[in-house]
Amino acid sequence: MLHILYIIAITAEAMTAALSAGRRNMDWIGVCIIAWVTALGGGTIRNILLDHYPMTWVEHPEYLLITAGGALFAALIASVMKRLRTLFLYLDALGLVVFTIIGCQIAEQMQLSIVIVLLSGMITGCAGGVLRDVLCNDVPLLFRKEVYASVSIITGAVYAGVGYLGYSIHLATIIAAVAGLVLRLLAIRYEWQMPKFVYQDEWE
Amino acid sequence: MLHILYIIAITAEAMTAALSAGRRNMDWIGVCIIAWVTALGGGTIRNILLDHYPMTWVEHPEYLLITAGGALFAALIASVMKRLRTLFLYLDALGLVVFTIIGCQIAEQMQLSIVIVLLSGMITGCAGGVLRDVLCNDVPLLFRKEVYASVSIITGAVYAGVGYLGYSIHLATIIAAVAGLVLRLLAIRYEWQMPKFVYQDEWE
Amino acid sequence: MLHILYIIAITAEAMTAALSAGRRNMDWIGVCIIAWVTALGGGTIRNILLDHYPMTWVEHPEYLLITAGGALFAALIASVMKRLRTLFLYLDALGLVVFTIIGCQIAEQMQLSIVIVLLSGMITGCAGGVLRDVLCNDVPLLFRKEVYASVSIITGAVYAGVGYLGYSIHLATIIAAVAGLVLRLLAIRYEWQMPKFVYQDEWE
Repeated sequence: MLHILYIIAITAEAMTAALSAGRRNMDWIGVCIIAWVTALGGGTIRNILLDHYPMTWVEHPEYLLITAGGALFAALIASVMKRLRTLFLYLDALGLVVFTIIGCQIAEQMQLSIVIVLLSGMITGCAGGVLRDVLCNDVPLLFRKEVYASVSIITGAVYAGVGYLGYSIHLATIIAAVAGLVLRLLAIRYEWQMPKFVYQDEWE
Repeated sequence: MLHILYIIAITAEAMTAALSAGRRNMDWIGVCIIAWVTALGGGTIRNILLDHYPMTWVEHPEYLLITAGGALFAALIASVMKRLRTLFLYLDALGLVVFTIIGCQIAEQMQLSIVIVLLSGMITGCAGGVLRDVLCNDVPLLFRKEVYASVSIITGAVYAGVGYLGYSIHLATIIAAVAGLVLRLLAIRYEWQMPKFVYQDEWE
Repeated sequence: MLHILYIIAITAEAMTAALSAGRRNMDWIGVCIIAWVTALGGGTIRNILLDHYPMTWVEHPEYLLITAGGALFAALIASVMKRLRTLFLYLDALGLVVFTIIGCQIAEQMQLSIVIVLLSGMITGCAGGVLRDVLCNDVPLLFRKEVYASVSIITGAVYAGVGYLGYSIHLATIIAAVAGLVLRLLAIRYEWQMPKFVYQDEWE
């Protein structure tokens, strides 16, 4: 189940990423690379940091083909994509939550401490978008967007909390997924913002 | 033979990279770092992603000295470098092809699937330049430059294809190198471009 | 002793990094991420490159909490931070030297060659700031700032040199730390600059 949601999510992330690449006038290979980095980059960074090999996409190269296919298809139907904006915003929320839970599960299987479990979830959920922004030469959106990384942390905390209370991984996954999705959709709907730290003076 | 071409290629990449660093007014250490990242960064990222340790330059620290020396020398003779522009464009093509084949060989030795073999070649051939552009705060040139990453993929495909037909690695290497070089030089000569995906509307 | 200085240094780096994040109007999680990347990123990159696992902060998650706490505290007292500018410049010098020596020690324990020992020190000392600048979408300051990476290399060379002469690690650490600190403070005081390589012509 989580596996199917994962494939839907990476495809959706790849399709959205294609539009970012298009805004930078990238060629077709650039579109694929941005799509891969966005969809698979979070898990890749998590695996590098936790020394958890092999990479998912080395074991399952079909993920590279699916995401590349999705990205090129999105580039072909860019005008349609625009009208599906809301759908893809929801799919992105799904991706955030699914990636986060997978990240938490992996750190948990490695028996790492709770701080690292939450961080692993957040990296898996959010780092792909940061990499995309760095490659597109933007200040990462994550650091400024309405409640996004926070949703990841809360999703991870719910997941870990339910597991800690002795319930099964399945139940923890479902509750965390629902809680995370609801929170993210509310954040989109009401345009919740985290307090921002604005500082003007030059330093250094 | 591939080894000698490799050393020529990393030195040439380091020398070209020095000019990028100079355009950003970097000091001498910045020049060395940009040179290292450009010349050795592709193989380094490939090794991190494939968990293939130790790094080439950890085993052969002389590569760090050669590339740093080349970069500082290029900074000294920057005005001469300008007139050698075409030579260095050819040497860059050589580097692209040589790095790609080495990347394919390593993934092949690790018995990874064909998709990963091609990707490993492309990362080895192209990622150094992407890292250089990120550190120099540019949108990576790769994603917009005339047929570059495509040459890497085709070189890898020829290499893998000839090997698949049962011929020796040596023959596969030579045929792929010639095919890749010819393709890249034609792309430079006739300014071939991949179709670009241009998308204007703001999203997110 | 080095351990206590290390904790002081990562906290100070995290506090300074918070102001960088504030200048980019990041939210509170962005502030934490920039703080982590700045304070712990150098050692993390070194560990990835040298295949030296687990990460310090995976073994000691309390470092993540300390640096996040320091960063959020710095954001709260941003106006006070401004008046402590000189103090934090000194603490940054301390961090540079301490991180460098720790980086050298780790490469030495792995019995790597002297070139890699110095590079490991420089990466540990400097890469966190480079990552911060990339995430904040600046050309890395390191490559242009007055004698910074050079101090790291000289600190590492003194450390390795004293060790090579047969003296204990403790003595090597103390002499290298004092030499590095004095050098860096002199560089700040007299605004020493490395010669810059300025190159104007467009290439590529």
